[in-house]
Amino acid sequence: SMRGLQCRPDINRSIHLSFRQRGDWKCCGVWMYCRLYRTMERFNKPEILEAAKSGGAFLRRFARIPNSGSPWKCAFCLTRDGKALKVQRTIFSECFYVMAMDELARVTGDKDMQAEAAQMMDQLVHWVRVDPSGLGKPQLSGDTPVCSMAVPMMLLCLVQQLTEARSGEEVDKYREVGGWCVKQILQHLQRGGTAILESVSSEGKELPGCAGRLQNPGHALEAGWFLLQYGLENGDQELQRTAVDKFMEIPFLTGWDKEHGGLLYFLDVDGYCPTQLEWSMKLWWPHCEALIAYLMAYSHTKEPALLERFSQVYDYTFSHFSDAENGEWFGYLTQQGKVTLDFKGGPFKGFFHVPRCLYMCEKILDSILNKQES
Amino acid sequence: SMRGLQCRPDINRSIHLSFRQRGDWKCCGVWMYCRLYRTMERFNKPEILEAAKSGGAFLRRFARIPNSGSPWKCAFCLTRDGKALKVQRTIFSECFYVMAMDELARVTGDKDMQAEAAQMMDQLVHWVRVDPSGLGKPQLSGDTPVCSMAVPMMLLCLVQQLTEARSGEEVDKYREVGGWCVKQILQHLQRGGTAILESVSSEGKELPGCAGRLQNPGHALEAGWFLLQYGLENGDQELQRTAVDKFMEIPFLTGWDKEHGGLLYFLDVDGYCPTQLEWSMKLWWPHCEALIAYLMAYSHTKEPALLERFSQVYDYTFSHFSDAENGEWFGYLTQQGKVTLDFKGGPFKGFFHVPRCLYMCEKILDSILNKQES
Repeated sequence: SMRGLQCRPDINRSIHLSFRQRGDWKCCGVWMYCRLYRTMERFNKPEILEAAKSGGAFLRRFARIPNSGSPWKCAFCLTRDGKALKVQRTIFSECFYVMAMDELARVTGDKDMQAEAAQMMDQLVHWVRVDPSGLGKPQLSGDTPVCSMAVPMMLLCLVQQLTEARSGEEVDKYREVGGWCVKQILQHLQRGGTAILESVSSEGKELPGCAGRLQNPGHALEAGWFLLQYGLENGDQELQRTAVDKFMEIPFLTGWDKEHGGLLYFLDVDGYCPTQLEWSMKLWWPHCEALIAYLMAYSHTKEPALLERFSQVYDYTFSHFSDAENGEWFGYLTQQGKVTLDFKGGPFKGFFHVPRCLYMCEKILDSILNKQES
Repeated sequence: SMRGLQCRPDINRSIHLSFRQRGDWKCCGVWMYCRLYRTMERFNKPEILEAAKSGGAFLRRFARIPNSGSPWKCAFCLTRDGKALKVQRTIFSECFYVMAMDELARVTGDKDMQAEAAQMMDQLVHWVRVDPSGLGKPQLSGDTPVCSMAVPMMLLCLVQQLTEARSGEEVDKYREVGGWCVKQILQHLQRGGTAILESVSSEGKELPGCAGRLQNPGHALEAGWFLLQYGLENGDQELQRTAVDKFMEIPFLTGWDKEHGGLLYFLDVDGYCPTQLEWSMKLWWPHCEALIAYLMAYSHTKEPALLERFSQVYDYTFSHFSDAENGEWFGYLTQQGKVTLDFKGGPFKGFFHVPRCLYMCEKILDSILNKQES
């Protein structure tokens, strides 16, 4: 029943957000289109490839903005005709650029493009592990470094992308980065292994105050399947167990709304009210990540409890987010489950979590069925 | 019934937000404490003055961070011991610094402090009207200037602060700035005088897309009483009428939730869903500004409809935000009026809107009663 991936080759239309567009959504679109084209027969169609190539050409021409301090810095927002509107002082726009370029290079065989992805990756690793000053954030006296789980998660995602079905020296270099990312992510398991905290100190300790107590159940679940995948590829059984027992179990126990169903967006580990206005809302993407996590975990462990989890999240998700009448998913519900923002695409909802979720789940379901048949 | 202003001299406690504190909240606190001390007999107490002076000393020592590019740039967040944590690339932290310094100088008679406020004001006017490059925002090719209503509103507030009960050359200079601010604010009255839009182009035209369609009813109401006050002080009857008939009437007609009561936070002028996740929530501060606006408008026009508006907002506000049991106000309700964030002070709720509202309303009510008696 998860078949029927709703993705249409209107990539250029879907990511024009009124008068501006997000550079990283364009990257996500290009990445997803190429991956669908390359790995799923029913999307191996010339119009999918053409849309991806046209998005890729736009990105290569306009995404990087060399006059912003570093030749590798990418725009977060662009006008429709490619002028930079906004540059973030983080690494995420550049990470999605790597995803798009590497995946497009795999489809087109463009060696220049692949080399550009690799060079950008080197720059990203330098910013994260050696010196972040090129990102443009001024150094302030009170600014103690904070480790956000998003950074090693994103880098690990790039490592998976760049190493997939490849070998050689380059790949060994990335594996080292991957190992570092895993170690960093595991630092977010705090309080004697009973909580996943979104931000920790650079020594891997809990930060003081509400910033330190913040939990993001959907993000922890996403980290869970990243870790499980990495653990499976590297035959690391302990990591596989930590991924399932901690990163997938804890967010469900703390984050699932027992009264109204669905995953809450933010929680305070001590039970106080988070300071984020949207903490009690139900957002689409944590549910996407939960579906991938529990199905992946079930397919490898065959523990019925994990299939039960998948099924519970599935029921909530498809009865609340999916729009049976007009297609696509809503993104934002009240705690009670009512649609409160009714658009399908917006500044923070692009062509990424929904199609990646449907794609991953279909692949996993296929593998389960194939194993049963053989 | 609005008597009993809940403000306690625990300024230093209330603005320490876990391990960081907002520089501009400290400024608001100092400003409010000084104003209460200076203009309300029951707050003319040494402990109020001492708290304000101690906050002021902290600010003078730590708020400005000269190594951030401009000697006038102030921190947005500081650690408890005064180290800068965050600098915004806007003018607001600096504006609140002017508010605090000028008001504290009025109480203490410190001429240096008053001169510093005046110099900072010159710098602010330069950033806004001549050259914003000192604020630290990189110039991007697609970055067309957008006029946010907050900028001239904030500057007009400073003009009021700096000119109150003063005269001379300096004051004439500020009056010119005030006139410019009023003209800028009036540009946000769009669509043939039927809508107040939060952002417009630098030519005073509606911006394309959802950014152009955004309405913030509470902010429009706040602009309304700023304009009314300015119109009264300058004997400008047309401005007074525009303030009441447009900036106070339109936000109520579009922003008041007819089903659940209270003012919605954001609206799209064409009736689409805003992209802000919190659009349908009820926040405390728009209600504070509405109370001031309608009471001020009533006290000058004596139109019963405006007292009726005040009364309607008052009933909602005091039955939903005010915490009868433990004091202070909650800040964040669902659309249905349920408290959804239960803290009294937080990253965006400091010692500003509630005490300013109670203070202004008490002053206006006193003036109405005095006029009736005389």
